[in-house]
Amino acid sequence: MHFASDNTAGVAPAIMAALSAANAGHVASYGADAQSKAVVTRLREIFEAPEAAVYLVPTGTAANALSCAALTQPWGAIFCHRNAHIEEDECGAPEFYTGGSKLVLVDGADAKMDPQALRRTIAHTGRGGIHNVQRGMVSITNATEAGAIYTPEEVAALCAVAQEFKLPVHMDGARFANALVSAGCTPAEMTWKAGIEALSFGGTKNGCMGVEAVILFDPKRAWEFELRRKRGGHLFSKHRFLAAQMAGYLEGDLWLDLARHANAMAAKLSAGISAVPGAHLLHPTQANEVFAAFPRSAHRQLHAAGAAYYLWPFDQSLEGEASEPLSARMVTSWATTEEEIATFLSHLK
Amino acid sequence: MHFASDNTAGVAPAIMAALSAANAGHVASYGADAQSKAVVTRLREIFEAPEAAVYLVPTGTAANALSCAALTQPWGAIFCHRNAHIEEDECGAPEFYTGGSKLVLVDGADAKMDPQALRRTIAHTGRGGIHNVQRGMVSITNATEAGAIYTPEEVAALCAVAQEFKLPVHMDGARFANALVSAGCTPAEMTWKAGIEALSFGGTKNGCMGVEAVILFDPKRAWEFELRRKRGGHLFSKHRFLAAQMAGYLEGDLWLDLARHANAMAAKLSAGISAVPGAHLLHPTQANEVFAAFPRSAHRQLHAAGAAYYLWPFDQSLEGEASEPLSARMVTSWATTEEEIATFLSHLK
Amino acid sequence: MHFASDNTAGVAPAIMAALSAANAGHVASYGADAQSKAVVTRLREIFEAPEAAVYLVPTGTAANALSCAALTQPWGAIFCHRNAHIEEDECGAPEFYTGGSKLVLVDGADAKMDPQALRRTIAHTGRGGIHNVQRGMVSITNATEAGAIYTPEEVAALCAVAQEFKLPVHMDGARFANALVSAGCTPAEMTWKAGIEALSFGGTKNGCMGVEAVILFDPKRAWEFELRRKRGGHLFSKHRFLAAQMAGYLEGDLWLDLARHANAMAAKLSAGISAVPGAHLLHPTQANEVFAAFPRSAHRQLHAAGAAYYLWPFDQSLEGEASEPLSARMVTSWATTEEEIATFLSHLK
Amino acid sequence: MHFASDNTAGVAPAIMAALSAANAGHVASYGADAQSKAVVTRLREIFEAPEAAVYLVPTGTAANALSCAALTQPWGAIFCHRNAHIEEDECGAPEFYTGGSKLVLVDGADAKMDPQALRRTIAHTGRGGIHNVQRGMVSITNATEAGAIYTPEEVAALCAVAQEFKLPVHMDGARFANALVSAGCTPAEMTWKAGIEALSFGGTKNGCMGVEAVILFDPKRAWEFELRRKRGGHLFSKHRFLAAQMAGYLEGDLWLDLARHANAMAAKLSAGISAVPGAHLLHPTQANEVFAAFPRSAHRQLHAAGAAYYLWPFDQSLEGEASEPLSARMVTSWATTEEEIATFLSHLK
Repeated sequence: MHFASDNTAGVAPAIMAALSAANAGHVASYGADAQSKAVVTRLREIFEAPEAAVYLVPTGTAANALSCAALTQPWGAIFCHRNAHIEEDECGAPEFYTGGSKLVLVDGADAKMDPQALRRTIAHTGRGGIHNVQRGMVSITNATEAGAIYTPEEVAALCAVAQEFKLPVHMDGARFANALVSAGCTPAEMTWKAGIEALSFGGTKNGCMGVEAVILFDPKRAWEFELRRKRGGHLFSKHRFLAAQMAGYLEGDLWLDLARHANAMAAKLSAGISAVPGAHLLHPTQANEVFAAFPRSAHRQLHAAGAAYYLWPFDQSLEGEASEPLSARMVTSWATTEEEIATFLSHLK
Repeated sequence: MHFASDNTAGVAPAIMAALSAANAGHVASYGADAQSKAVVTRLREIFEAPEAAVYLVPTGTAANALSCAALTQPWGAIFCHRNAHIEEDECGAPEFYTGGSKLVLVDGADAKMDPQALRRTIAHTGRGGIHNVQRGMVSITNATEAGAIYTPEEVAALCAVAQEFKLPVHMDGARFANALVSAGCTPAEMTWKAGIEALSFGGTKNGCMGVEAVILFDPKRAWEFELRRKRGGHLFSKHRFLAAQMAGYLEGDLWLDLARHANAMAAKLSAGISAVPGAHLLHPTQANEVFAAFPRSAHRQLHAAGAAYYLWPFDQSLEGEASEPLSARMVTSWATTEEEIATFLSHLK
Repeated sequence: MHFASDNTAGVAPAIMAALSAANAGHVASYGADAQSKAVVTRLREIFEAPEAAVYLVPTGTAANALSCAALTQPWGAIFCHRNAHIEEDECGAPEFYTGGSKLVLVDGADAKMDPQALRRTIAHTGRGGIHNVQRGMVSITNATEAGAIYTPEEVAALCAVAQEFKLPVHMDGARFANALVSAGCTPAEMTWKAGIEALSFGGTKNGCMGVEAVILFDPKRAWEFELRRKRGGHLFSKHRFLAAQMAGYLEGDLWLDLARHANAMAAKLSAGISAVPGAHLLHPTQANEVFAAFPRSAHRQLHAAGAAYYLWPFDQSLEGEASEPLSARMVTSWATTEEEIATFLSHLK
Repeated sequence: MHFASDNTAGVAPAIMAALSAANAGHVASYGADAQSKAVVTRLREIFEAPEAAVYLVPTGTAANALSCAALTQPWGAIFCHRNAHIEEDECGAPEFYTGGSKLVLVDGADAKMDPQALRRTIAHTGRGGIHNVQRGMVSITNATEAGAIYTPEEVAALCAVAQEFKLPVHMDGARFANALVSAGCTPAEMTWKAGIEALSFGGTKNGCMGVEAVILFDPKRAWEFELRRKRGGHLFSKHRFLAAQMAGYLEGDLWLDLARHANAMAAKLSAGISAVPGAHLLHPTQANEVFAAFPRSAHRQLHAAGAAYYLWPFDQSLEGEASEPLSARMVTSWATTEEEIATFLSHLK
C-alpha cells in the first residue's frame, strides 16, 4: 500500500533497459551524442513543434526554476496558484534562479487558478509603476497539486488572460502525462495550441529515474536557457543517460501507458473510498492523486496495516477522537497494483 | 582511441548492476531510504570522519558551486588556480551559487597553486577593508586540470597558508580517486588530515553515471548545505539511484581499481609518447591525463585514423606546416584499453 | 494643499543649516569624520543602546532591504503585512538584497499584523522541512501604511510570537517619529525593549533631505551589514553630509517636534473630514496620514482647487456618479500649514 | 595639505547654494519635478545626445554597478583593467548587481587597458562555448586609477576592439571632468562618438555632495535601468536634491572649471615633486592625481607636518631606512589651494 508519493516507486523496466542499452562504448558528452539529439527530435514530433528548443534536466525543481528564470526578469512577478509546487515545495528555487522574483498567489478551487482571480491579481500588480514589482509571467500546474486537471480549454482561458497583459505562460507538467490522458487531448492541444510558451515535461514521477524535459515552444530564449542550465550545474556530462531514460519513456507511448495505469488505479481507489460510509472526496480525482477525508479510526487501522500515505495537511494527528474525519492524500503510480488498492479499501471498510 | 575526456566513457558494469539492483519495490524518497543512509555511513568510514556531513549531487559543477556557497559569503574571494575548473569550465556557477563571489586567481606550474603565490594573493586581497572583497576561501583541484597531483604534504602546505588567514579550504576532487591512488595515501590523509574542510568527491568521471558526493568534514554547515542543494534543484526525489551508483562505486574498492586502471593507461600512453622523436610532455603525467606536444603531421595521421582527443588549447589548427608541434590533451578512463593505447602509439610513430 | 506625500515637502530649515555648517574644510571620508561618529553616539543615547551598531543610508528602501538581508538567509521567509512597504512599494528590493527571500503575507486591520494571524502564518510556513522556504524573520511597519500605529505593547506581542519561533524582528520606521510621538513612549520602549532587533529609523519623510539610520540593537551582524551596504552602493564617500542631516534632525529633539506637527495637522484634517456629512474615515488617524472616503463631487471640487492627494487605491476615477464615495489618502508633513488644512476642508464642505 | 582623496573636500559653494535654492515649497517626488527633468535635458544637450536616457544616483559605486547590470547578463564577462575601481574598490558591487558576472582582468600601463591585451583577453574568453562565461561588456575608467587619461582616440581604439566582438562599452567617469579638460575634447567626442554606450558621469569627487549621472546613449535599456535603480534602493524620493546638485554643477560650466582647477593643482604638485632630487613620478600626471616615489625621510617630514595622503600601495611603512623611496598617491580637488601645494613642496625639499 505505497501511496505516499509517485516518487517512491522505482524505474519502469523498459526505461531501465534503455539505460543499460545506452551504456555501450564511448559517446560524445554534454548532449552531443546521437541519442540525445534523437530525443529532441522525438519530443518535437510528439508536440508537433518542429522549432521548439528542448533540454533535459534531472529534477522537476530544476525544470521549473530554470523555466521561470528564462521567462521573466528578477523584477517580474510570477503569477501562480497558492498551492503551486513552485510556491510550496521548492524551497525558493524559483526565487533563487530568477534572481529574486516575487511569486504572487492566485486562488481557485482544486488548486486551479480561476481566470477571473488571475485577471484581478495581474491587474492589481504593478499599478504603481516603478515602485512595484512588474508583471512577469504566469505558471500553471497540470495536473494540479490537488489532483485535478485543466482541460485544454481551461488552459487556453488562463493563457488568454495572460495574453491580455502580454505575459508568457509556463506549465509545470511534473504530472503532464497524467493530465494529458485524463483530458484525452494531444500534447500540442494541451500546450502551445492553448498558449503555453514553456513546459516542464515530467518523467521522474511517471517511471523515469530522474529526468524532465524543458520544452520552449518559442525558441528565442534557447541559448540563454542553456547558459542558465550550465550555471545551475544541471548540464550532465554523461548526458546520454538522461536521453536514454527519456527515449525509453517515449518509446511506444510508454509514457502514456504508465500514466493511464496510474490514473486508473487512482480512479479505482477514489471510487472505493467514496463508497465507504463516513468518507468523502476533497477534490475530484482526475489524475493519479486522491484527496479524501475519513474517520480517524480508519486511518489508525490503515497505519497499523502498513499503509503509506500522508495526512494532508501534515499537522493532523492520529491521536484523538476516533470518529473525527482526517484528510489524507493518496498517490498512485505506474507501479501501483490492484492488490494494493483492494487491501487499502478492505482496511478502510 | 577515445581520449577526448573521461566523461565519454559509460558506466562501469558493477555500477550499472547496482542501479538495477536498487530498482526493487518502493522506498522512501529524498534520501530517506536505507541505501542512501548506508552510503553516508560508508563514506564516513572511508574518510575516517564519523561526524562528516555527506550529500550526493548529480554533477561536479553542482558539487563545487554548492561547496563554495557553503564556505564563503557573497563578498568573500575564492582563491583558486587560474586554470581551475571552477574558474574556466563552469560558466560562472560558483558566482551564481555564492551570490556574486569573486574568484581571485593564483599562479603555479602544472595548474598547481604555488604556496608563496597563494600567500601573496591572499595578503593582497582585502587590504582596503570595506572597499574590497574580503578573503573568503581557498579551492584546490586534485588531480589538477593539467593532470598533475598534489601530495598530502602539498595540500597541507596550501591549507597552512589558508589557515594563516583563517580561511576554509575546499578540494575539487572530480578526479579525486586518480589523485589518491597516484599519491598512495589514505582518503583522510589527502583531505581533512591535511586541512581540507569540504570535498567534492567525484564519481562521474571515474565510472559512475552522474553522481558526486560533497563531504563537509566540519558538519556545522550541514543544514545550510541541504537547503542550498534543494534550492539549486539538486535534491533527487528518487535519491536511491544516486545512492546506488555511489554504493556500487565504493563496493570492494571499485573506485580505486577504476582509477588505478585509468592512471596506468595514462602512464603507458605518456611513456609511449615520450619515446617518440619530436614529442615531449607538457606536464608530468600523474593521474589520467596526458598533455604532450608532437608534430602536426602526427596529429593529422591520428585524426585520419579516428583518434579522439583535443588540441589543447582549442585554437590550434591541423592546417599548417607539418613539422610544427601542436599541443594536445589525452584523457584515459576506467574504460580505456591497452589496444587503444597501442593503436594510438602506432600512429604516432 | 500638498497632501500627496510627506516626501513632496523639502528639508526643514535647521537641517539645511546643518548641511551648510558641515561644509567647512576637509574631513575624512566614508564615515570616519567626527560628526559621523558623533551621530552614532547620539543615536545610541537616544535609544539607550550603547552597544548598538548604527549606519546611515540615503533611502528607506535601502534601509529596509539591507536590514532584511542582514536578518535572514536567502531561504528565509520574511513575514510582513500584506500592505507593507517592503511588499508593495520597493519593486522587490528585499528579494534582491536577500538573494531571493520570499515575503509571506499576514493579514490584519489598518495594515497592522494580527498576532494570531502572524502565529498561524509562521506555523504554516516551513512545516515541510527541506522542501519549503524556512522561517526567517518578521518585519513590522510603524507607523503602518494605513496611518495607524502599533503601541509598544502591540509591538511586544508580535515580537513574542516571533520569539516563539526564534525569529528576529525588524521595524520599518520610515515614519518612526510619527508613531513614537503618537504612542507617547521612549524610543527604547518602542524598539529593543519590546523585542525589536533592527530598526529602519526614518529621516527623509520627516524633514531630512535623504537619510535613514539602520540601528542593529544586536551588533553581531554589524560587519556583515557594512559589507552589504558597500556592495549595495550605499556607503557615501562624503558621508559627513548624511551625518549632518541626521545630527540636525536629532538636535534639540527637532525630529520629535517635526513629527508632532505633522501628526497634529493630520488630526485636524481628520477631524474636519469626519465632521463633513457623507464623509467617513477608513482607518484611525494615529500618525500623519488620513484615509477617508467622501463623495466624488467633493473630490472634483478639491482637484479643481489644486489639492494634491491620491485616490487610494489608484484605480478609481473622477468620472462617474457625483454622489458615489471615493476613498483617498492625504499625507501631512513637517511643512503642512494650518491654512492648507482650512482651505482643504472649506472645499470639502 | 589635504591630498588623501578628492572626496575629503566639501561641496562647492555654488552647488550648496543650488541645494538651498531647491528647497522652496513642495515639488513632485521621485524625479517628476521640473528641475529633475531640466537636468536630464541639460545633460542631453551637453552630450549632444537628444535620445539618451539619463538617471541620477547618489554614489559612483551605484552608477557603475547599475550600468554593468544593464549592459551584461549574469553569465557575461566584464573586461576591465586589473586596477579598475569596479575590480578593486567596490567590494564586489558589480558582481552583486549583475547577479554574478565575472570581471576578467586586462593589463596595461598607467591603469589603461592596452587594446591588444584587451583583444587577446576577449578572444580567450568564452572559447569553450557553454562551459565558459560568455563575453559580456567592456568597462573603461577615465581618468584612470593611476591618474592617466585616455584620449578620445584611445577610447575609440578600445571600443573598436569591443565592437569586433559586438560588446557594449561602459565608461567609469568618476573623474570624467578631469579627463575631459585634460583631453581638450567635447563630452560627445569622449563618449558616444568614440563608441561608449553607457557613462557613469561623476559629480561627487568634483564638488558635489553625492550625485552621479548614468547616461545611456542607447536608451533601449532605459526602463530596465529604472527598475534596477529602484530595486537597488537608489531612487530618491526627494529627487530634487540630486537634481539641484547636478544643475548647480553644470551651470555655467562650473564642472569644467572645478576640474581645470584640480588638474592645475595636480600639475603644479607633480612638477614640484619631479624637481626634487631623489623623487620621481610613477605615472604621468594627466588629471588630478599624482603618483610619485620619494625618500622615506621626506614622507616622515610631511607626516609630521600634517600632510594627508596615502602610501600607495598601503603596505609600506614609515619605519625603515631613511633614504629608501616609498611610493605615494596625492589627490587634488576643486578645493585644493596653491598654499597647500607650496607647503607640501617646501617639506619635500
